Amino acid sequence: MQSLQIFNTLTRTKENFEPINSPFVGMYVCGPTVYGDPHLGHARSALTFDLVFRYLTFLGYKVRYVRNITDVGHLTDDVAGTGEDKLQKRARLEQLEPMEIAQLYTLHYNRDMALLNTLPPSIEPRATGHIPEQIEAIEKILENGFAYVINGSVYFNVKKYNDSYPYGKLSGRNLEETLEGYRELDGQEEKGSKEDFALWKNASPEHLMKWNSPWGVGFPGWHIECTAMSTRYLGQKYDIHGGGLDLMFPHHEAEIAQSNALSHPCEVSHQDEAKYWLHNNMITVNGQKMGKSLNNFINLDEFFSGNHPSLEKSYAPMTIRFFILQAHYRSTLDFSNEGLQAAEKGFARLTEARNKLNELKNSFSGNDLNTNSDLEKELNSFEVEAAECMNDDFNSAKLIALMFGKISAIHTLSRQPEMHFQVNRDVFVRFADLFLSYYSDVLGLLPDTGSGVAMEKISALVDIVLEWRAEVKKNKDFATSDKIRNKLEEAGINIKDTREGTEWSLTSQ
Amino acid sequence: MQSLQIFNTLTRTKENFEPINSPFVGMYVCGPTVYGDPHLGHARSALTFDLVFRYLTFLGYKVRYVRNITDVGHLTDDVAGTGEDKLQKRARLEQLEPMEIAQLYTLHYNRDMALLNTLPPSIEPRATGHIPEQIEAIEKILENGFAYVINGSVYFNVKKYNDSYPYGKLSGRNLEETLEGYRELDGQEEKGSKEDFALWKNASPEHLMKWNSPWGVGFPGWHIECTAMSTRYLGQKYDIHGGGLDLMFPHHEAEIAQSNALSHPCEVSHQDEAKYWLHNNMITVNGQKMGKSLNNFINLDEFFSGNHPSLEKSYAPMTIRFFILQAHYRSTLDFSNEGLQAAEKGFARLTEARNKLNELKNSFSGNDLNTNSDLEKELNSFEVEAAECMNDDFNSAKLIALMFGKISAIHTLSRQPEMHFQVNRDVFVRFADLFLSYYSDVLGLLPDTGSGVAMEKISALVDIVLEWRAEVKKNKDFATSDKIRNKLEEAGINIKDTREGTEWSLTSQ
Repeated sequence: MQSLQIFNTLTRTKENFEPINSPFVGMYVCGPTVYGDPHLGHARSALTFDLVFRYLTFLGYKVRYVRNITDVGHLTDDVAGTGEDKLQKRARLEQLEPMEIAQLYTLHYNRDMALLNTLPPSIEPRATGHIPEQIEAIEKILENGFAYVINGSVYFNVKKYNDSYPYGKLSGRNLEETLEGYRELDGQEEKGSKEDFALWKNASPEHLMKWNSPWGVGFPGWHIECTAMSTRYLGQKYDIHGGGLDLMFPHHEAEIAQSNALSHPCEVSHQDEAKYWLHNNMITVNGQKMGKSLNNFINLDEFFSGNHPSLEKSYAPMTIRFFILQAHYRSTLDFSNEGLQAAEKGFARLTEARNKLNELKNSFSGNDLNTNSDLEKELNSFEVEAAECMNDDFNSAKLIALMFGKISAIHTLSRQPEMHFQVNRDVFVRFADLFLSYYSDVLGLLPDTGSGVAMEKISALVDIVLEWRAEVKKNKDFATSDKIRNKLEEAGINIKDTREGTEWSLTSQ
Repeated sequence: MQSLQIFNTLTRTKENFEPINSPFVGMYVCGPTVYGDPHLGHARSALTFDLVFRYLTFLGYKVRYVRNITDVGHLTDDVAGTGEDKLQKRARLEQLEPMEIAQLYTLHYNRDMALLNTLPPSIEPRATGHIPEQIEAIEKILENGFAYVINGSVYFNVKKYNDSYPYGKLSGRNLEETLEGYRELDGQEEKGSKEDFALWKNASPEHLMKWNSPWGVGFPGWHIECTAMSTRYLGQKYDIHGGGLDLMFPHHEAEIAQSNALSHPCEVSHQDEAKYWLHNNMITVNGQKMGKSLNNFINLDEFFSGNHPSLEKSYAPMTIRFFILQAHYRSTLDFSNEGLQAAEKGFARLTEARNKLNELKNSFSGNDLNTNSDLEKELNSFEVEAAECMNDDFNSAKLIALMFGKISAIHTLSRQPEMHFQVNRDVFVRFADLFLSYYSDVLGLLPDTGSGVAMEKISALVDIVLEWRAEVKKNKDFATSDKIRNKLEEAGINIKDTREGTEWSLTSQ
């Protein structure tokens, strides 16, 4: 069986996954900037690396998953525009406090990611919480000669760096191409060359978040936080760096440059910050790029509530999760009402099969011998097939298709107990355990739509109603029996009469 | 009407609450040390200041509520005991990472506090996220002459401080009394005098959390984080400092000393860090102090699950919340199964009345005139009476007793629609709005025990079952009618037959 292959953006090939120091795996993922509500882009990135985290854990690796919170805001106080004096005179409590805004949106982000059932990362470091580490990294880069100080700001010297290391390695450009993309300096900018980027910025008086540094009062540049925090928690070279495709350039390119400049002269084992660079693709909405100006910018809680003019209805967090996982993370993904409603139905179908399988585990009466029946073979092949899907660069799309393919076998075993004897008991148990584990542990799907306590009450109440229905059917009062079925449907309960009795399930809405 | 009175530990009297810069209020509360699961002590402190936060907001103040996370752990790596070399040789990922432990218990704390329906603070700063602020505060204290450096550590000079400011002011001791409580230095300690406390500690090689400082590699002392973080987010002098009574000495005493030493020479308006110091009292379990050795140390999730030998059953988060709020925050509070079960019943009774009142709001058909009936007077007096309870140092115990006193009036209006005409419509609406607001916004109680969606299903199902019951009753089949009632009770649904039809409610369990 093929072992885990990961597509490495750095080499543009699928490579065998070999952790630097197995069974330990270090993974750093660029997290949200917490100055706005979480949207689909956040969900796709978080879900992609949640899948990676879950699958590596499933394979037995000990993963330290670090995802940062970018809470360095570039907020200014408008009072300051009329002179610093006025700002100084305002009481501390009257001033806008960027950390209040960061707290609010961090809470929103974590709430929505929990609803999507993503596992919290092992460490969630905040950029503002690592100012000393960032200052020390900048000092080291200066010391190694790859940066310069102007007017209390520090800039990374891209040309100087490019003499020793190829700048553009990750995004696949060379420096000349990169330079073409930059506007000429307009004379107002202080930096030495247009392609250079800030490691530390001198703060103007109205700037609200600032710290003392060897270069005066200021704040860190956009890129240095990730290098400083990944180094602190994962070391100078670690296994996996993840993020959205939109971060590849310039953010990740700058990270690699900073990391190499920090550890200069680089030993081979210390180059490029991470061994594997993974990028999830972007999402579109109804075929268009998502953007505030296009009026198709939908926040996650608008999906959950349905409260947006482009949405026909609300979509449960598990529908969004399932929809995203139904595509491979390197494919583009288009959100539409049709697509989401198809995913909703698909998720309900897979979940119904999962629930049946879970019940079957208690009632299965299989064979002690291997029967070599087609049914047995179909269950037996799942282990290798599922591993092949996920080992092919975390292909959850293939895995879900494979699981759909096993649904009819599950229904056969559920509806025809006599078929149990065509399947060896150990084969069944192994299949059931794996199927349930891929559903819950790897794909991270949640079968319940209500809370446990509420579900108990719902279950007990449905049983009472079905007792009534059984009674009227016994009396051949089919009109009332149908009326009860309709009322249950209105209440969101589907029922199905089988030879063994009446089964019920929650409708997917 | 008496305005808000707050018992100030600093003066040992109830004082009129006058914010320094109304309508802004700054409040700092000592939060958890995140190296263990949250327990009752955490719940009481969080609920006390949640009540303060909610009531001040209810009164119209703009509150910035800061509660810290103490994540500076004193963890060491046991490998280091056999020599630093070995530690250096271990890969970064193999080493214990204190921030992973901090993340785990921060998540547990926030989960349990959310279940208890405490509002998140406006800012939740982490001690490790404010190392520069702590170093700068220590530098300033050194500069002002109230600290000294020994072997890379910095200590606060308590005797020197006591020459200018009374050390012991908050806890009501003088320095001589305080000194008696200290062991003599055993010669192994480096500090100059036994009462001095560390502002910065030199780190030994096996220490895992350490930072560079002007005094070498080390970590901040226990007390300085709160002074540094409250100063950053609330200013040098702010309105309210809260915490558990166990923190009054030495933690809060040290905070006051640090704050005065920082702003020395103090202007009157800059003394003692906060204007009002509030302390919640301790909890006992079955009359005993809570402690790991006494086997009565119950974590919050053990209360929620009932999974502890001392617990007869599980207790819902709202039961715990109600139980704690039924006592004034400055009283001791004893947890027992009897007490919790009484609180559970009381909460259910209050909630039933709240739900009735909520329904009544839609159906109320009152009088346009003032009737001056006893019933009207009873509703009319609620506003002043409720304010009196809460204005008396946030006395939630009195408020809950007052609300219980209004239950029979609510039931009268609910059961006897003809009584509506004894009450002026505006009086009723004002009463209902206030009662619901005190229940939800001030006391922070949640009437639902299930999620909204689940409750809709439960409600629709109960209606179907009640239809069946109405049918069998019409046919005088009282045996079946009683059977249905019993089955509903087993499912956790209480029903009550009234003249208007059958009412139902969830049982409190």
